[in-house]
Amino acid sequence: MVNVSIAGAAGYSGAELIKLLLRHPGVKIDKLFGHSTAGKRIDEVHPSLKSTLSKEIASFEAESLDGTDLLFVALPSGEAQSIVAEAFNKNVKVIDLGGDFRLKDVNIYKKYYKHEHSAPDLMQKAVYGLPEWNEAEIKNAKIIANPGCYPTSVLLPLIPLLKEKIVSPDFISINSYSGTSGAGKSVNLSMIFSEVNENVRAYKVGVHQHIPEIDLYLQKFGDKTPDFTFAPHLMPITRGIYTTIHCKTDSSTGFANVEEIYEKYYSDKPFVRFLGDQIPEIKNVVYTNFCDIGVAITGDNLIIMSVIDNLIKGAAGQAVQNMNLIFDYDQTTGLL
Amino acid sequence: MVNVSIAGAAGYSGAELIKLLLRHPGVKIDKLFGHSTAGKRIDEVHPSLKSTLSKEIASFEAESLDGTDLLFVALPSGEAQSIVAEAFNKNVKVIDLGGDFRLKDVNIYKKYYKHEHSAPDLMQKAVYGLPEWNEAEIKNAKIIANPGCYPTSVLLPLIPLLKEKIVSPDFISINSYSGTSGAGKSVNLSMIFSEVNENVRAYKVGVHQHIPEIDLYLQKFGDKTPDFTFAPHLMPITRGIYTTIHCKTDSSTGFANVEEIYEKYYSDKPFVRFLGDQIPEIKNVVYTNFCDIGVAITGDNLIIMSVIDNLIKGAAGQAVQNMNLIFDYDQTTGLL
Amino acid sequence: MVNVSIAGAAGYSGAELIKLLLRHPGVKIDKLFGHSTAGKRIDEVHPSLKSTLSKEIASFEAESLDGTDLLFVALPSGEAQSIVAEAFNKNVKVIDLGGDFRLKDVNIYKKYYKHEHSAPDLMQKAVYGLPEWNEAEIKNAKIIANPGCYPTSVLLPLIPLLKEKIVSPDFISINSYSGTSGAGKSVNLSMIFSEVNENVRAYKVGVHQHIPEIDLYLQKFGDKTPDFTFAPHLMPITRGIYTTIHCKTDSSTGFANVEEIYEKYYSDKPFVRFLGDQIPEIKNVVYTNFCDIGVAITGDNLIIMSVIDNLIKGAAGQAVQNMNLIFDYDQTTGLL
Amino acid sequence: MVNVSIAGAAGYSGAELIKLLLRHPGVKIDKLFGHSTAGKRIDEVHPSLKSTLSKEIASFEAESLDGTDLLFVALPSGEAQSIVAEAFNKNVKVIDLGGDFRLKDVNIYKKYYKHEHSAPDLMQKAVYGLPEWNEAEIKNAKIIANPGCYPTSVLLPLIPLLKEKIVSPDFISINSYSGTSGAGKSVNLSMIFSEVNENVRAYKVGVHQHIPEIDLYLQKFGDKTPDFTFAPHLMPITRGIYTTIHCKTDSSTGFANVEEIYEKYYSDKPFVRFLGDQIPEIKNVVYTNFCDIGVAITGDNLIIMSVIDNLIKGAAGQAVQNMNLIFDYDQTTGLL
Repeated sequence: MVNVSIAGAAGYSGAELIKLLLRHPGVKIDKLFGHSTAGKRIDEVHPSLKSTLSKEIASFEAESLDGTDLLFVALPSGEAQSIVAEAFNKNVKVIDLGGDFRLKDVNIYKKYYKHEHSAPDLMQKAVYGLPEWNEAEIKNAKIIANPGCYPTSVLLPLIPLLKEKIVSPDFISINSYSGTSGAGKSVNLSMIFSEVNENVRAYKVGVHQHIPEIDLYLQKFGDKTPDFTFAPHLMPITRGIYTTIHCKTDSSTGFANVEEIYEKYYSDKPFVRFLGDQIPEIKNVVYTNFCDIGVAITGDNLIIMSVIDNLIKGAAGQAVQNMNLIFDYDQTTGLL
Repeated sequence: MVNVSIAGAAGYSGAELIKLLLRHPGVKIDKLFGHSTAGKRIDEVHPSLKSTLSKEIASFEAESLDGTDLLFVALPSGEAQSIVAEAFNKNVKVIDLGGDFRLKDVNIYKKYYKHEHSAPDLMQKAVYGLPEWNEAEIKNAKIIANPGCYPTSVLLPLIPLLKEKIVSPDFISINSYSGTSGAGKSVNLSMIFSEVNENVRAYKVGVHQHIPEIDLYLQKFGDKTPDFTFAPHLMPITRGIYTTIHCKTDSSTGFANVEEIYEKYYSDKPFVRFLGDQIPEIKNVVYTNFCDIGVAITGDNLIIMSVIDNLIKGAAGQAVQNMNLIFDYDQTTGLL
Repeated sequence: MVNVSIAGAAGYSGAELIKLLLRHPGVKIDKLFGHSTAGKRIDEVHPSLKSTLSKEIASFEAESLDGTDLLFVALPSGEAQSIVAEAFNKNVKVIDLGGDFRLKDVNIYKKYYKHEHSAPDLMQKAVYGLPEWNEAEIKNAKIIANPGCYPTSVLLPLIPLLKEKIVSPDFISINSYSGTSGAGKSVNLSMIFSEVNENVRAYKVGVHQHIPEIDLYLQKFGDKTPDFTFAPHLMPITRGIYTTIHCKTDSSTGFANVEEIYEKYYSDKPFVRFLGDQIPEIKNVVYTNFCDIGVAITGDNLIIMSVIDNLIKGAAGQAVQNMNLIFDYDQTTGLL
Repeated sequence: MVNVSIAGAAGYSGAELIKLLLRHPGVKIDKLFGHSTAGKRIDEVHPSLKSTLSKEIASFEAESLDGTDLLFVALPSGEAQSIVAEAFNKNVKVIDLGGDFRLKDVNIYKKYYKHEHSAPDLMQKAVYGLPEWNEAEIKNAKIIANPGCYPTSVLLPLIPLLKEKIVSPDFISINSYSGTSGAGKSVNLSMIFSEVNENVRAYKVGVHQHIPEIDLYLQKFGDKTPDFTFAPHLMPITRGIYTTIHCKTDSSTGFANVEEIYEKYYSDKPFVRFLGDQIPEIKNVVYTNFCDIGVAITGDNLIIMSVIDNLIKGAAGQAVQNMNLIFDYDQTTGLL
């Protein structure tokens, strides 16, 4: 039985994490930490939990971690660093669902996240928690940087094709559409229902903080840094990311080649479903840890579509998958 | 006063057309034609029209066109050809909102629309009704092929950049997201609310019938046929198209160049609003005839976003704009 | 030509008002006033207005009203009182879209609106702007209290039945469902998309500030104060109110009686459409000034359904209708 | 281990049922039956099931039930009768999620369901599967009539108050709002996204087939047949029912009395959560088997609000709860 605690239990990812962990046969939820919600019961903050979990949320203190084997951190980027450092010092393993430990270069971090990083040494120690490509490192990690939602939806379809040199790295265009839960509980005019409903807008085009993350891990796992553009958009659904990637291949590449490559890398990966020439749909993956991938070839152009639930495979589900690897559970435990 | 009739008054574009025409000071609505709705009153079919228009819908017959100056045809592709031919023979001008008269090559038509074209000669006579680029021809046209919704959202932002050779024609990727009204009143399982809501899916990737239309008119107005990919998607809103175009420029191109080009071509065009580096949003154009365009430059990559209301600038509004040109009204009459 | 100014131009009702007034042939928009938006151009605040209106928003000052014939006030309740008083003192007519001048009793006002009323004398002078029932008073009014959105949807269907004593006043239950634009641009967690989408919740059950307004005007126009319950709900659409009223009638009442009564009172009212036993739908009234009413009789129970667009018939459209009456335009001018 | 089969596996309730059963530790899914989908694999029909269940759907034949302990029937009303009869004859227990076995009077059945009932004797044998009120009968039932979604949302809040005579039976008004999944996969114009989105409409007011079901079981469990009105509405969400009930109590009744009654009947019922004076929200119960109930008292009027997920507590979840009772599992097994 693994004793886990959660910092940032009051957010949307926190709620998903709790729901997944309550179903997990090998986990006991220990402490719940929060800032502004400290003192409240978790089922006051998330009324959907009423009569399933009623623990009180506490302010984070390192000594509260006695007895905790693993700390999940589901805090906005910038708020995780000191907590992760304290947990690390107490030898508690950490899975950080935010962006603070995914990059390796503090300058790039500062450029995209707009503040200094206070724990650059831990940044180097952190292991990127993309189980399909980094399983060995994850099993031995003390700090897991759980991948961002957009990068998960981009890396899983793109790495195999880059690695096998089947697409041109000269120009890859990536379009992603996300539901609103990706923005968490941020409260501002642009996120109220009347502004989001029946509307679509791109945002942070070319400057989104997931760009260097995509860049770094395409290079690490795909052996290549392509020249890519990334345009994220907000759309009026609550959950889900739809990513459409356009790239060039050479004229001799056919569907069979693409299929073979995906089979090679993913046939034994339980959470990646290659659909062939069928079109992925968000409705087939919401509330699951699956990433569905489909492709279309037209001439020497390849269009790849992938979908995930941003709160599950893009956050809490992938975090549980990483936990399973660390504690030697089957990686699907509690996730199917 | 222009006497207009409408074939296909029972669809969504038909309803929009009627609402725009009722507000137009120089138009009198004459006949309304329909197949399955013949015999019903128009306000039974579109209850929102109750107490504003209660004409009866009739089956189309050529002789009913006596007294009609202009026939709008808002029928599914394939159903317009015989009606357009009959109107043409009676010297009634036609604006066809469907896809039957936009292409020039019957073989390409057949490949994408999946049936033979029965009036190939009229196909040649038809004038493409994109007012911002084809005004002179439109003014003298007898048959207007009103542009498709996706092509409108693609051509308006892309033509100026191609024409000025500021983007590389070697690889342009186009992603479009459309609301459901673009599919008209087609009734099938994939369009019911439970299947569309909280979902997104691409469709007809690489094989959509708007691909040859985009191709033909980029060439005609942009002087260049680029190699492009086009991925249309369905998303859970009723009205609006969001198009995001990724392309390469050379490293010397800056925002100022792009801005200058759009100013050059569109500063005197009342329905194109160049937003500069501001992000377009669908909510700013719904129920209007505007196309909003914004751009982002990152390195030597250029990302262009455009939005329209698919039923207005992408259908009924553009049709009224064309009517205004033909009958010498200011092109904005009834549209602001 | 009527010169109008608007205080509170930056809100949703303000935007609708501007759009309606731009289309009105007898109106010139003079000044736009705002607090936090002062100094900005109106098309920065409402980008949909770009290239149609670009006036600058100013802080309200009474002297700016020179030349203004009519001031629309679209401010949150509590913020209108001093502005209305200043306009009144300068002999400028006022239509207040908020709740500050609808009630007649300062104690009831305080109980429901939670603050003191600073202009109780003007409260008495204000005329309730429900054109279908108060036309004569409206024509001579200096201050119009434009009805609330919920009360409009309740009073129009209920007054005729009460007045004709066809329903029992002992127990009438009223359920209303509103889109989110009714809450204006209020920014709080409960209004963000992720909290509202795929959700429904009742709110302020039994304590909503529209309860005394409904009570007062049922009495004034329906000659009877019934015992009624009112449960407002928030639902995930942007525009529209759906009101369903259950009441008792006696067993001799049939559909014909009900129909006759609605015909009697509304056949000459251009914005009330009685649908008989057909079911009203929000989609038929959005973006219009219509109120659609339908009824169902089961045994001696009568169920009445009404729909309006909360921003038009429930706010800006009804305000323009009142303006038309005051300045002797046909009441439909600019509204059809 | 219970062997279960499902007739009607291709619908929305069928999909939910499969997902719940796959998680249930004491169940093995045996056969899947369907009409038009016979011959397809279940994960072709429900792509979300890909890589979790890939059984083939077969045409129903009684002999295929050898080895099946329990047959779930999730077919449209009218299609279940012969299948239930065949299963009954083979001594296979049945839980019917449709409306064919909920009523006891064939004439009332015919009046509301518009066709004859072919198994009136089994209708008498069937036990109404509302576990909170009928547990003893359910445990010994051979045929369970699983309650309708609306009745579940009405009976749970109303029975205790009627039984304790705290509300007047003379006039109770019931308003329900349902998501679209309640209509199943019915394909017609009124259910396509463009017609449902941004819209609300009442339907079958006073004639809905759930009216006699509510009537019958208020009488059976609440000891009283009140005079009630029922107005169901369709709203633009996929899952969830919001029911708001208005009734009269006498002036001595206070919140404490109401609370005490709900505590008395539901404190030991795991799936009913009484929220006191807090407002229920659909988002807190979707994807769960909970029914949340909240109340507001104003004067001598009582307003009760309840919410369920129509596909879970209103269909598949309640069916699993009933299965648990029949086969002596804890009733929450697989449902928390």
